[in-house]
Amino acid sequence: MKTELSRTLGIEHAIFGFTPFPAVAAAITRAGGFGVLGAVRYTAPDDLARDLDWMQEHTDGLPYGLDVVMPAKKVDGVSEADVEAMIPEGHRAFVRDTLAKHGVPELAAGEASGWRITGWMEQVARSQLDVAFDYPIKLLANALGSPPADVVERAHAHGVLVAALAGSARHARHHADAGIDVVVAQGYEAGGHTGEIASMVLTPEVVEAVAPLPVLAAGGIGSGEQIAAGLALGAQGVWLGSLWLTTTEAEMHSRALTAKLLAAGSGDTVRSRALTGKPARQLRTEWTDAWDDPAGPGTLPMPLQGLLVAEAVSRIQKYEVAPLLGTPVGQIVGRMNSERSVQQVFDELTSGFEKAIDRINRIAGRSTQ
Amino acid sequence: MKTELSRTLGIEHAIFGFTPFPAVAAAITRAGGFGVLGAVRYTAPDDLARDLDWMQEHTDGLPYGLDVVMPAKKVDGVSEADVEAMIPEGHRAFVRDTLAKHGVPELAAGEASGWRITGWMEQVARSQLDVAFDYPIKLLANALGSPPADVVERAHAHGVLVAALAGSARHARHHADAGIDVVVAQGYEAGGHTGEIASMVLTPEVVEAVAPLPVLAAGGIGSGEQIAAGLALGAQGVWLGSLWLTTTEAEMHSRALTAKLLAAGSGDTVRSRALTGKPARQLRTEWTDAWDDPAGPGTLPMPLQGLLVAEAVSRIQKYEVAPLLGTPVGQIVGRMNSERSVQQVFDELTSGFEKAIDRINRIAGRSTQ
Repeated sequence: MKTELSRTLGIEHAIFGFTPFPAVAAAITRAGGFGVLGAVRYTAPDDLARDLDWMQEHTDGLPYGLDVVMPAKKVDGVSEADVEAMIPEGHRAFVRDTLAKHGVPELAAGEASGWRITGWMEQVARSQLDVAFDYPIKLLANALGSPPADVVERAHAHGVLVAALAGSARHARHHADAGIDVVVAQGYEAGGHTGEIASMVLTPEVVEAVAPLPVLAAGGIGSGEQIAAGLALGAQGVWLGSLWLTTTEAEMHSRALTAKLLAAGSGDTVRSRALTGKPARQLRTEWTDAWDDPAGPGTLPMPLQGLLVAEAVSRIQKYEVAPLLGTPVGQIVGRMNSERSVQQVFDELTSGFEKAIDRINRIAGRSTQ
Repeated sequence: MKTELSRTLGIEHAIFGFTPFPAVAAAITRAGGFGVLGAVRYTAPDDLARDLDWMQEHTDGLPYGLDVVMPAKKVDGVSEADVEAMIPEGHRAFVRDTLAKHGVPELAAGEASGWRITGWMEQVARSQLDVAFDYPIKLLANALGSPPADVVERAHAHGVLVAALAGSARHARHHADAGIDVVVAQGYEAGGHTGEIASMVLTPEVVEAVAPLPVLAAGGIGSGEQIAAGLALGAQGVWLGSLWLTTTEAEMHSRALTAKLLAAGSGDTVRSRALTGKPARQLRTEWTDAWDDPAGPGTLPMPLQGLLVAEAVSRIQKYEVAPLLGTPVGQIVGRMNSERSVQQVFDELTSGFEKAIDRINRIAGRSTQ
């Protein structure tokens, strides 16, 4: 499975795997794909350095990348405390009431919330970059908007390709104008932040909008057939995130959450602002229902919503309060029905791809050799 | 482009074209695809017979089909007047006010509304079937739910395959249990009634759910690349509806509507209950915005909503009131940017498909001959 982009990066298969877990990212790279480590949870640069050291030791010199979250709109000199002060008391009360209704215990005194909004703020992303450029990363992805011009320049000076996610052709053109090298076309069905255009329509639109820049198809991809479809739509590779959440290498928050993912069908996700203030696909839970209920206070804009719910999300995860327990995941969750190693998943993707190519060639009346 | 299903039906390309226009359906069949005439607008059986006579004369003995709308829930002995009586006065006032706000003129005295809800009612669908089985149709599609058992039996007795649209694997299994022969997997991005699962995820789910029954991929398909993607996902053919609306053979209501379709982008549709009471993708207009506005009265359930808005829709179309003028159409509307003949569109689909197959074989490292 080779495209111009996969040759540039020196990978065997044009399969890009996004994951917050170093062990998963490294295993994707070792399997012949391109592992991309999500950096949003690293609020301390030293933690990121430690995990990138580990990645170096476990990727056999093969290429990998890093994904940061750097919102397009820069707000200078705004601290987390400043943002905290902007949250209305009514919304705080709604969080307290919703948690109380489900009997969610408090964290222990002095126990830190495991998930902080700070990873979403530009100054944190920049401190992550200071660490990242000390490592031989081959691709830097930005999950929200185009990265600032100086970041693109810095990446290019280090020989690092820059990728950015786009939910529309307009977003993609904006990225191209900003000098990025790879566009990830993130369809409606994808997990996490996503727009309303489905991959079937979005992928070729983005390919056409930014040609000759390479495009990766993201959203709804979790089998070799779906990889073949994404590539048929003109992509130079596929970008998979959700599928790795149920691999044995994934360090998930809780067994209860893994069990929910394994049981969920494709209709059990929702595109909700509950997590960050921007529409992001995730498991539908009583928590997302509460935020999406017209009778409730509704969500706050990014970054307020993320900060508002950070501690609540930690408590829900720590105490495994099943009705509220969720995670960003795409509609492909419907086929994540067993726990397997990254290598097993990868083998299934590549062999499924070969079978899909055989079948489509029979339909097209081609004999292949 | 040949699959088991296309061989069974004796067509050259596994491309199924749904359209309310006989001239379009016949042209699709003549081009080597399978034209499916939508019957919902035929309230008088004689009108359907006249157009099927015309189809017979213009399809050179090649196969075609018919699509009826037969809701799964049968309501015996309910007349249009009974349904009219169930509509709240507040909703009628909202229709009047919204039309008045946009200065939409009344129809002339005695002028009939061109679009009636009656085509959605089972007794009308059955009178259509009485006509249809006098013609050598090869496929009968039902757009809402599984057709009643006696209709499936009657079709099979006439050697007619029965197809049904499904928006989820569960719907598809229900169809299979009802004895239908072909499932059309209708993705979120499709025009008309549609669910929330996008084609990339839905198609393989439905294929797996009803195997060995053949599945057609519908939703987001308007190019040869997208056909290749749909087939890669395991479908035995593709089902295209929106794409034909801007062909020269399409007898559209108004030039203004055609102009809106040609100008619309993939983000200019909405999945709204405004037209029928069930979620259906259509052009987003000030009319759909009014119905989807939380400050308004909201929509009524099917079939009330369709009956409520039937005359209003006729007036909007007749007087071409641009801000309100819409039609069911999928996200593929973004690439419907010029008026061409069905044959030209079809040639582009088949040549685009061949190019997509060439490209994916290069990626897969296959040489083809």
